[in-house]
Amino acid sequence: MEPGSDLGLGDSPLHRYLDGEFWRLKNELRRVLGGCPLFRHRYDLSLDEMRALTFQRVTFTMGLPLLKRAIQEQEFVINTPCENAEKMYIGNAMYGNYAAVFAQLIINGRSQGPHCFIVPVRDEDGNLYPGVTAIDMMYKEGLHGVDNGILIFDKVRIPRENLLDKFGSVTPEGQYHSRIKNKSARFNAMLAALTPSRLAVTFQAMGAMKLGLTIAIRYSHSRRQFGPKAKEEVKIIEHQTQTLRLMPHLATALALTFASRYAGVLLDEDVFHGKELVDSRPLQALVAGLKAYSTWENIRCLQDCRECTGGMGYMMENRISGLKCDTDVFVTFEGDNVVLLQVVVRELLAQYTKQYEERPITSLLQSWAKSGGDKLRTSFLAFNMDTVGNLTFLLKAVNFRERVLQRSLVARIYYKVMTKKEDFFSAWNSCLHHVASLSLAHIHRVTLEQFSLAVRRCPDQEDQALLMKFCLLYGTRLVFQERAWYLEHKYLTPRASMRIRTQLLDLCDSVKDDALRVISAFNIPHTSLHAPIAGITNPLAAWAFYPAPLLSPAREGARSRRPKLEAKL
Amino acid sequence: MEPGSDLGLGDSPLHRYLDGEFWRLKNELRRVLGGCPLFRHRYDLSLDEMRALTFQRVTFTMGLPLLKRAIQEQEFVINTPCENAEKMYIGNAMYGNYAAVFAQLIINGRSQGPHCFIVPVRDEDGNLYPGVTAIDMMYKEGLHGVDNGILIFDKVRIPRENLLDKFGSVTPEGQYHSRIKNKSARFNAMLAALTPSRLAVTFQAMGAMKLGLTIAIRYSHSRRQFGPKAKEEVKIIEHQTQTLRLMPHLATALALTFASRYAGVLLDEDVFHGKELVDSRPLQALVAGLKAYSTWENIRCLQDCRECTGGMGYMMENRISGLKCDTDVFVTFEGDNVVLLQVVVRELLAQYTKQYEERPITSLLQSWAKSGGDKLRTSFLAFNMDTVGNLTFLLKAVNFRERVLQRSLVARIYYKVMTKKEDFFSAWNSCLHHVASLSLAHIHRVTLEQFSLAVRRCPDQEDQALLMKFCLLYGTRLVFQERAWYLEHKYLTPRASMRIRTQLLDLCDSVKDDALRVISAFNIPHTSLHAPIAGITNPLAAWAFYPAPLLSPAREGARSRRPKLEAKL
Repeated sequence: MEPGSDLGLGDSPLHRYLDGEFWRLKNELRRVLGGCPLFRHRYDLSLDEMRALTFQRVTFTMGLPLLKRAIQEQEFVINTPCENAEKMYIGNAMYGNYAAVFAQLIINGRSQGPHCFIVPVRDEDGNLYPGVTAIDMMYKEGLHGVDNGILIFDKVRIPRENLLDKFGSVTPEGQYHSRIKNKSARFNAMLAALTPSRLAVTFQAMGAMKLGLTIAIRYSHSRRQFGPKAKEEVKIIEHQTQTLRLMPHLATALALTFASRYAGVLLDEDVFHGKELVDSRPLQALVAGLKAYSTWENIRCLQDCRECTGGMGYMMENRISGLKCDTDVFVTFEGDNVVLLQVVVRELLAQYTKQYEERPITSLLQSWAKSGGDKLRTSFLAFNMDTVGNLTFLLKAVNFRERVLQRSLVARIYYKVMTKKEDFFSAWNSCLHHVASLSLAHIHRVTLEQFSLAVRRCPDQEDQALLMKFCLLYGTRLVFQERAWYLEHKYLTPRASMRIRTQLLDLCDSVKDDALRVISAFNIPHTSLHAPIAGITNPLAAWAFYPAPLLSPAREGARSRRPKLEAKL
Repeated sequence: MEPGSDLGLGDSPLHRYLDGEFWRLKNELRRVLGGCPLFRHRYDLSLDEMRALTFQRVTFTMGLPLLKRAIQEQEFVINTPCENAEKMYIGNAMYGNYAAVFAQLIINGRSQGPHCFIVPVRDEDGNLYPGVTAIDMMYKEGLHGVDNGILIFDKVRIPRENLLDKFGSVTPEGQYHSRIKNKSARFNAMLAALTPSRLAVTFQAMGAMKLGLTIAIRYSHSRRQFGPKAKEEVKIIEHQTQTLRLMPHLATALALTFASRYAGVLLDEDVFHGKELVDSRPLQALVAGLKAYSTWENIRCLQDCRECTGGMGYMMENRISGLKCDTDVFVTFEGDNVVLLQVVVRELLAQYTKQYEERPITSLLQSWAKSGGDKLRTSFLAFNMDTVGNLTFLLKAVNFRERVLQRSLVARIYYKVMTKKEDFFSAWNSCLHHVASLSLAHIHRVTLEQFSLAVRRCPDQEDQALLMKFCLLYGTRLVFQERAWYLEHKYLTPRASMRIRTQLLDLCDSVKDDALRVISAFNIPHTSLHAPIAGITNPLAAWAFYPAPLLSPAREGARSRRPKLEAKL
């Protein structure tokens, strides 16, 4: 018996490909945490009990030698936490011994902008130091294991060494030094430090999606309801609406796996090359956008998982409801999603301006006019109906949308600010819907591109064929949901648009069995899965148990493509 | 000081118009429940405490003389509860003394179909009777005040009189009698009894929307963030994305107010005229559709309210998170929404078939062909850009969409079943997405029509002007969200479609101050509102307090339309 097999873990080329570079570490963590009683899913504890358990879990995990080894490198992240200007929502404010506090650094009456300080808030016995007040914000929708609190400081004295001096330091004589002379550039440098934690939120949102989808898809392949007269009822995965609700989310979870890995690699490279994050503005924009996109997708995905599992999905025992409540906060923390979409677009416009900055104004307008021609050049593709199902067509379509939205936004803001003399804030504000659309269009394009590249690079031919189906589904979903825009811009004809709808329905239907292979390759330990409706027994909720669906004979999805294999089976 | 003013209640023509016929009773209830400490918002209790409190609340409410008077009539509802076939999810299963149980009635070995029986499950001391087992399903996402359990009966004997004999009775000699001879018609008659409770869910969903919107809109008019350089930050309601997210929900809450009242009046008339609900199939379809539509709208609305209030909205203190968790179950209980959409369409098709049943098959196909002509006849409207903002255009558009979807669905199913000889289940299943679209299109049409009628009937001219704006917004939202379909069917030109987008943005911006008048007319007692971010003080969470926004000088929204008034102010 393979180690870990009691946790429902597997190991195949697809498992490893979805895990990526760190598959060994991930497998080790799955075995250690999945087998540890501390990590059993709990939802029946009081607020205090849940907080205490979370503390134990964190202590246990951070003490694991394998993790200590792995994170001694990934340090820049840990040293730069940040809370919002009002000092609210501080995690672990009720128990922590130290706080990392952003405060204006004022020397000889002159402000050098916000800097980060380490402030001791409690002694070893947990008593607050004089001048420190902590208020517990108590009950939230979810994340009950971590308290959120408010910290108030009344003239608390800390040693000079407690200034984190990455961006600025003070000599014993009170002289301020910083490599970054401009105060607002210095503030931006500090904000850049949010990039790794935003990427971490993306990974957490993806993890929640994978967990929810695994439960909902296993149940859908097991629970039966309705069917042809006088015959056995069909599995609910057979209902068209069920596949239409679940399969696009599964395709999105895969797409995000590769897009966020791409961002992770870029971030790693920057860190290893000692590059300041502030110099990687395109990366900051990418991560801000991925955080917004993935956390919104997660909310939609879990809501559909909840609804697709009916009353069973409403019971905490089955995990999905709790996930929803815990991850709901992702859309507004570490930067509100609507604000992050604006961060993305500011960066896109900065690139655009750079591109045109030395040309006269007329060329800017000219380039806007050009986007009309651009539209005509590429739109003929949609008239040939067969190309709609082609990945190249889908890639071109999302690319086209991003470019047109970008150029038209530039033109609108230029007109408002330069011609109509509106102040920048009003001009920008009256284009916010446009800004949000462009931002998501950008992230969609990058995500589809990264998914396509990952399909191309997949070493196993059968896995590649499987991933290709989901990649097509993902691209089709993107074009489908924005088909009104493509019709408005005559990039799709009405017939091609209807064809996209049929294609979406057909693809969802065609991947519903492959879905079992994909969720198996997510490789979630049974102890984390927990849900009886996903086939995990629990004597306390025998009423919720549904047997796990069997994975069809190895790689059925790929068989039809490889008749040679078929003979062997 | 007006009675009830400490609860933040008001009384104006608009307040009464939104309340409708029963405004006196509603006001009385607001005062009694709003002033009673039992009904203070609680989220800090254990499961057992929450259940005990809910029991006290129900006992108190049902004992109110004013309510006893009012519901001695609304009886049919109370006598016909129903649980699903597996006897799971039974509310109050852990404490109740009696259960209403649907069971197959078998007499002399012959089944007469399911009938409803009153089964005593516990004695006065709460001990289960022999043969009865009750299992607690424990923790759910929300609705912690009501337990859900499983009841199992092992040969429990009950007197013959305990059969609820509305649809069938048994004589002491064991003879079965029923007015409805057909067994499946009899089952349908019993299902019809679900109609009043489905309508009740619609009202609850609407109530949650109104509560969430009141909190989110008050906060948005009070909290400030971002703004023009070197000036005061603006109220977040000024952000284009904020109005775009909240105002359409407010318009929908108003639309649902009048659509559900319409259904309620029909139901009342039927009950008063002694009509069997089973004979009101269009009403059943309407209520099934309204339940699905309103509960989904509620989920989306509360999610936006939560996100629009940021981290504050995540705190239980501010009410929205708890509402989300409590009402999430509405989309799958009392009939899963996806199933209910099918109920709606079966009724629409039954009407259609009736209309054509005596004509030959060719006329059916002919009528399908006619819908093409229909399309051309009405679509020219969209070419004249000015008509897009016209309520008549919007009403025609939603009407057109319903008819085309209905005819094309008939044609598709006819082709699959009659020509291709598919079994009905497969044919229906492969059209489920189409079915769902038609069903919602039907409900959208009825809802917009009822809203328009309510605007027309509004006795106060200024209130009428106010409601008209929101009615236009609601119609614009409906056409906007389906604009791809209208473009595919050439009912909108690309230019008209873009115009719809602009119109939506402009309307959302133009009603953002009027929104304060609307939520004030929802007339929710401060004790129910509870949220500090909505201006309700709470010494336990002083950190969350934001002062309530002031209602602008009386009826500002209407001033521009009535210059005479302006002179007086």
